[in-house]
Amino acid sequence: MSDTERALKEVDANLESSVAELLELISIPSVSGEEEGRPGIARAAAWLDDALADVGFSSRVVETACNPVVLARSDGPAESGKRLLFYGHFDVQPVAPREAWTHEPFAPEIVEDDGVRRFYGRGASDSKSQLWSFIEALRAWKAANGAFPAEIVIMLEGEEEMGSPSLGDFLEQHREELDCDVAFICDSDMWSPTRPSITTQLKGLVHETVTINAPNADLHSGHYGAVAANPIRILSTILSSLHDEKGRVAIDGFYDGVVEMTESQRKRWRELSDELDGSGEVNLAGGVIEDGYTAIEAMWGRPAADFNGITGGNQGPGGRSVLPGSATVRLTFRLVAGQTPETIRNRFRKFVSDRVPEGCSVEFDGPEGNAAVHLSETNPFLIAAARGLEAEWGQPAVLKGTGGSIPVVGALNDGLGLDCVVLGFILESDAIHAPDEHYDVERFHRGTRSWIRILGEVRGGLRPWKQGSDEEPGRERNIGN
Amino acid sequence: MSDTERALKEVDANLESSVAELLELISIPSVSGEEEGRPGIARAAAWLDDALADVGFSSRVVETACNPVVLARSDGPAESGKRLLFYGHFDVQPVAPREAWTHEPFAPEIVEDDGVRRFYGRGASDSKSQLWSFIEALRAWKAANGAFPAEIVIMLEGEEEMGSPSLGDFLEQHREELDCDVAFICDSDMWSPTRPSITTQLKGLVHETVTINAPNADLHSGHYGAVAANPIRILSTILSSLHDEKGRVAIDGFYDGVVEMTESQRKRWRELSDELDGSGEVNLAGGVIEDGYTAIEAMWGRPAADFNGITGGNQGPGGRSVLPGSATVRLTFRLVAGQTPETIRNRFRKFVSDRVPEGCSVEFDGPEGNAAVHLSETNPFLIAAARGLEAEWGQPAVLKGTGGSIPVVGALNDGLGLDCVVLGFILESDAIHAPDEHYDVERFHRGTRSWIRILGEVRGGLRPWKQGSDEEPGRERNIGN
Repeated sequence: MSDTERALKEVDANLESSVAELLELISIPSVSGEEEGRPGIARAAAWLDDALADVGFSSRVVETACNPVVLARSDGPAESGKRLLFYGHFDVQPVAPREAWTHEPFAPEIVEDDGVRRFYGRGASDSKSQLWSFIEALRAWKAANGAFPAEIVIMLEGEEEMGSPSLGDFLEQHREELDCDVAFICDSDMWSPTRPSITTQLKGLVHETVTINAPNADLHSGHYGAVAANPIRILSTILSSLHDEKGRVAIDGFYDGVVEMTESQRKRWRELSDELDGSGEVNLAGGVIEDGYTAIEAMWGRPAADFNGITGGNQGPGGRSVLPGSATVRLTFRLVAGQTPETIRNRFRKFVSDRVPEGCSVEFDGPEGNAAVHLSETNPFLIAAARGLEAEWGQPAVLKGTGGSIPVVGALNDGLGLDCVVLGFILESDAIHAPDEHYDVERFHRGTRSWIRILGEVRGGLRPWKQGSDEEPGRERNIGN
Repeated sequence: MSDTERALKEVDANLESSVAELLELISIPSVSGEEEGRPGIARAAAWLDDALADVGFSSRVVETACNPVVLARSDGPAESGKRLLFYGHFDVQPVAPREAWTHEPFAPEIVEDDGVRRFYGRGASDSKSQLWSFIEALRAWKAANGAFPAEIVIMLEGEEEMGSPSLGDFLEQHREELDCDVAFICDSDMWSPTRPSITTQLKGLVHETVTINAPNADLHSGHYGAVAANPIRILSTILSSLHDEKGRVAIDGFYDGVVEMTESQRKRWRELSDELDGSGEVNLAGGVIEDGYTAIEAMWGRPAADFNGITGGNQGPGGRSVLPGSATVRLTFRLVAGQTPETIRNRFRKFVSDRVPEGCSVEFDGPEGNAAVHLSETNPFLIAAARGLEAEWGQPAVLKGTGGSIPVVGALNDGLGLDCVVLGFILESDAIHAPDEHYDVERFHRGTRSWIRILGEVRGGLRPWKQGSDEEPGRERNIGN
């Protein structure tokens, strides 16, 4: 029996116990971006610190200007001579709207439905099951084989969902400790419930909150509605002009410098599927896709502006006749290579400011943004990961883009110069960032087994793509769903 | 000493005690339109029922399909042979946004600032001080003179702020009991802090709540923002098209049948003031006024569409990257004579439905609306009220319009055929319908004294306007502020 086989056996044998621990982790309300979430962040960090120590790591909780990082490493160099960084995040999105949940957000239990054993909770998929999959894989490998397969560094972030405000400082201060041959970043999704993927192209992200203020506080709308400034009306007018009739963002200079997709990339992405994410669960009716691009091209390869939230005046219930003093929109820009967050932010702010009527005012707020990242598809660790995934799932991994943004990838890749491999096992249908977020036991199990196989590939020796074979990405091959 | 003088003296002597009782009434959270407000509504009704019995009325609480009405009457006909109906409402607007209040909404106490004794609380001005002013005046008249000056009927409504859903049925069922020579409706404002007014023209009102639903529940905006339907974007586009470049409502047929202001009316309103409400406290910068009309004409004489609230997706804090599954706007239409609520509602719903993209859906909701009301300016009770107000305040009462809507006026005037006189003592600067709503002791005192003088005019005998004199409205006279 090979090391890999022994470790897989250990994973299988320990599944129920490992899931029980995962549910305990999910039950900790580690919401970032809300003051009330701070105690949960601290509890989750302490819980993970203990768990990593139990597995045999030297672990500690590192405080930052914002939320803490759990940082662990194995003792001394390993026989393989390789040093691997694993990244995950233990903070979760806010729960709101609470009333839309039919399950408790922080009291997960296993629910069997149509033969699938699911568990519900904020963070169930994004991203506590993800980080727990590599921790359990490393535990199992050591338990089965007596030692880790490589020197291991684990970094668990506590502020990913709020835009990682102190990540840059943290990385700078721990540059040496984090210097590894590769960073495995486990925070992305599968192509479909049966087909794995590695994400090689990620969008940049700029969050903006815009508040339009009228010169008066709230007024009676019956008395002044017909004459005084209405921030909802002003905001609607501005938002409706942010896209042109071709579905393009109408901000001056928004597309300046944008790196176009390559023909090879477009060809591969068009071959993937007629469906959007391989699962076909998302209905695009009523959506506006930029003229000249397919849905996948727009999602992965074109910059976008999305409205995430709007609020102002009477939130109901009841019909309060108020002319609100202010209205607020929250939006995000998703960037591609060639766009810089600060330029986009400044151009957007000018776009809005130019459209605010005299006498009214506008406030802007937003954390530091991050640029898009394109990763090498010939990095031998990526190839090892692709082989490990294919061995577990029986289908080749899709090398895909994403419309999402993972700030740590750019920070590790561009900032620390680490090769990154971005993979994960969640699905949009897990309701990530939404009410009733969930995950399932089988996917957790196979995700953990995938890590064992990837560790086995790394332990066994790295090899490039077989040139000219079906294995090499970009060549003609059947990667239909 | 005349009856009027004796009653004024009694009002003056009892001021502090009367205000203390008023604060007790304001402390009862009688919010209509919210399920949680129901106990407060019941408590306020019982409190008023007791208070009216103490004054010597036969009073009872009449249940309806929605909120109760307190109905009281004096025993038997009075010497004057006249029968007067007094109307007020004891329900209040919701408190939200609670965090914007710097005073407790339901724990009023007197706060002295710059020599003005104010009290803060939801309902302080709209409308508990108003109804308490005529109750205290009637109490004082009886205490000073041994009997009421006329036969009195008092009707206190508990659902005005939610659009009076059961008012029509209540009036129909109590038609005989409510049959009076005049209805004094105390729920309107002064022209300025020093100048009284009577409102003779009120707008109609249609409340609508519109929700745009995407075909999916909330999605991750990074993944699907560039391709799937965004209800905030759809809603913004629709709202921004509701007004045209002339500031007119762009709904087909919206202005059909609209009764234009008379030249005499426009002339009188233009003479009133360059300021908007006589107090000059509202800043119109950034507002859009329909082309061809002054601010006061737009407020009192032109129909309007106002956005009262909007909500969808991430409400913050924190930057949740959500593509929301729905977005909602609450809006009101203010109607003038010639427009019917149902026609406007139907035309608006068609306007929106025509603009919802295929694959998305729209839901509409809204209580029954009411039409605009124009009252006679030669009704002798109105003339008596104008004389009483002028005697108290030392300035002639402005006969004004309002952009606001008081459903009971139409119901009593058009439905029961009662002559109505609409007056009151609140000001927009009292923050009605807004956080930190307040009122002041002096205005309550002078409002109560105004009612004594009006009762004195009614008791003394009704007389028409002195034809051709300064007193007659519409003639040249100095009614500048």
